[in-house]
Amino acid sequence: MRVADGLPLAQTEPGHEARARVRFQDPRIEMAHGAGGTASRRLIEGLVVPLAGVSTHAPLADAAYLDIAGTALAFTADSFVVRPLRFNGGSIGELAVYGTMNDLAVSGARPMALLTTLVIEAGLSTQVLEAELRALGEAAARHGVAIVGGDTKVVERGKADGLYITTAGIGRLDSRLTVAASRVQAGDRVLVSGPIGDHGITILLARGDIDLRADLQSDTRSVWPFVEAMAEAAGSAVHWMRDPTRGGVATALNELVRDRGLSIALDEDAVPVRDEVRGACELLGLDPLHIANEGQVLAVVAAAAADAALAAMQAVPGGEQAAIIGQVREERLRTVTVVSAYGGTRIIDMLVGDPLPRIC
Amino acid sequence: MRVADGLPLAQTEPGHEARARVRFQDPRIEMAHGAGGTASRRLIEGLVVPLAGVSTHAPLADAAYLDIAGTALAFTADSFVVRPLRFNGGSIGELAVYGTMNDLAVSGARPMALLTTLVIEAGLSTQVLEAELRALGEAAARHGVAIVGGDTKVVERGKADGLYITTAGIGRLDSRLTVAASRVQAGDRVLVSGPIGDHGITILLARGDIDLRADLQSDTRSVWPFVEAMAEAAGSAVHWMRDPTRGGVATALNELVRDRGLSIALDEDAVPVRDEVRGACELLGLDPLHIANEGQVLAVVAAAAADAALAAMQAVPGGEQAAIIGQVREERLRTVTVVSAYGGTRIIDMLVGDPLPRIC
Repeated sequence: MRVADGLPLAQTEPGHEARARVRFQDPRIEMAHGAGGTASRRLIEGLVVPLAGVSTHAPLADAAYLDIAGTALAFTADSFVVRPLRFNGGSIGELAVYGTMNDLAVSGARPMALLTTLVIEAGLSTQVLEAELRALGEAAARHGVAIVGGDTKVVERGKADGLYITTAGIGRLDSRLTVAASRVQAGDRVLVSGPIGDHGITILLARGDIDLRADLQSDTRSVWPFVEAMAEAAGSAVHWMRDPTRGGVATALNELVRDRGLSIALDEDAVPVRDEVRGACELLGLDPLHIANEGQVLAVVAAAAADAALAAMQAVPGGEQAAIIGQVREERLRTVTVVSAYGGTRIIDMLVGDPLPRIC
Repeated sequence: MRVADGLPLAQTEPGHEARARVRFQDPRIEMAHGAGGTASRRLIEGLVVPLAGVSTHAPLADAAYLDIAGTALAFTADSFVVRPLRFNGGSIGELAVYGTMNDLAVSGARPMALLTTLVIEAGLSTQVLEAELRALGEAAARHGVAIVGGDTKVVERGKADGLYITTAGIGRLDSRLTVAASRVQAGDRVLVSGPIGDHGITILLARGDIDLRADLQSDTRSVWPFVEAMAEAAGSAVHWMRDPTRGGVATALNELVRDRGLSIALDEDAVPVRDEVRGACELLGLDPLHIANEGQVLAVVAAAAADAALAAMQAVPGGEQAAIIGQVREERLRTVTVVSAYGGTRIIDMLVGDPLPRIC
């Protein structure tokens, strides 16, 4: 399929086009529609895509692909509405840079340039804005990504929660990588770059809504070093990647199995989870597999190359706890199953509802 | 100068880099900082650019230029926070598509692909969202521009004003055009594609805050047809373009004369203004030259090609009232002067304050 003016989409995913009709029946939008789980999927696939005429076969993918005179580019945008603006290990400014860089990275593209738009609530102290602009600038500079422009809007008091930031990014595809759900095969291994759930639980604690303290910080960071290490070590044996933000690892993998018509079995004991995250999740009745991450990459790699990809991620600073956490199965049940050390198994679905609103 | 990873900025504007230090002293952000006038310029040049490290010489330009393997692209993003969401002649959905398309167009780039991100207030009726998604999709489809992806966030009730939309766009530079403030010369003519102020006054009336009725509608539309017509008729004799949105024609021209170190004289009687707009402005003590437009292009064209460029715009449907409204002068006063039919002259500055908040 083609984008306007001779720009072909370099890669497309099958199976979505037939669904492009309005099926969304909820009378109004609620928080869960923004949580990245089942309700988000219904809203996006059932309303946004058919009405806005989103011309991609992969509306839930992290970036769109464009081919410019033989150079393959990825193009993506995200809005950030995290509350509070600052939290242990990061802030909205950093998140807005890394979130968009990471969407490019897991699309196989090296981030190059960003645009950033601000919606500021009148009355916001300049000091707060200054801190976030500095965070934006430093995060981008740290990774050699240029902020090339943007836009600033101000709304009345009470009409935003301090500050919302949107970033749009453009990146160049790494020719060593070809990632697409359609490339995922039975037998492939599922890898993750590090401990899951740190970001979501950190945000929850930062709000002070629950009486719990933990020495935890957000994993907000660029995942490009992990992607590049895997590209070098495993190349096209890397079949699929995603940064498991809203909805967590379980939602990202459920989207994959539904799109691909396969199943995934996760080894619960292999999934790296910090004690603090596990403890908070037990207390709150949440599953770490549903908690958002902002600095992890989830990859599906051909079995023969999985160990090499794992070693490459582990060699990246901050990737020491990377792990192979599961395997793609032939079963056409389109389920993600978690197998515990005791041999028990349970099916883990996409995130339902919104236990942790506004985590990014 | 260069953007990351070998992407040169194809065009840059001189004179901004030396100013890239924090000079913004206001203790907090107020509505005027988002109005597109002097306060916006202070915020952007004095805080956003130095801290976020915006790596362009033209932070107030409409788009950034990127060169991909010899193909020149323009890349831009804007957030839309217009209140109310729907108004005579348009709505936020249309505005979000045309606003970004127009930023590309006046940068000399044919719009190709858009991304759209939504920040939705919980409780928004699906019907309202549906109407805006439809407006987005129809506006893009009407002009052969692909919406290739996006993002959806939901914030709590009271934390947004229904819906904010951000669009990011990418376009391909028209090789016939090279527009930059540095190309503007004394003697050049100033052209506008049609009557000014329709959008701003329509929004003002739509809010019902003032007891005034007028048969007026927003000029929200794509300006690409005007740009393309001028490219065909005048090519590189088109020296500079801008879509005069927030802050209106006066602010756009003041930015130009300040950047360029020249002056501009406008012929007041030549400026097309509808009676309804003129009447509302007189009543409110506003100048039509400060009122926002969402479907006009302001161009500076070499004198010898000005008539051809004008005729080309007038031949485009909706361009019948295009006019030559002024001339660039050698005087280094960096002022925009308005000359009336009676020979009186006045200096018109950039917009100060925010008489019309949230018009886009």
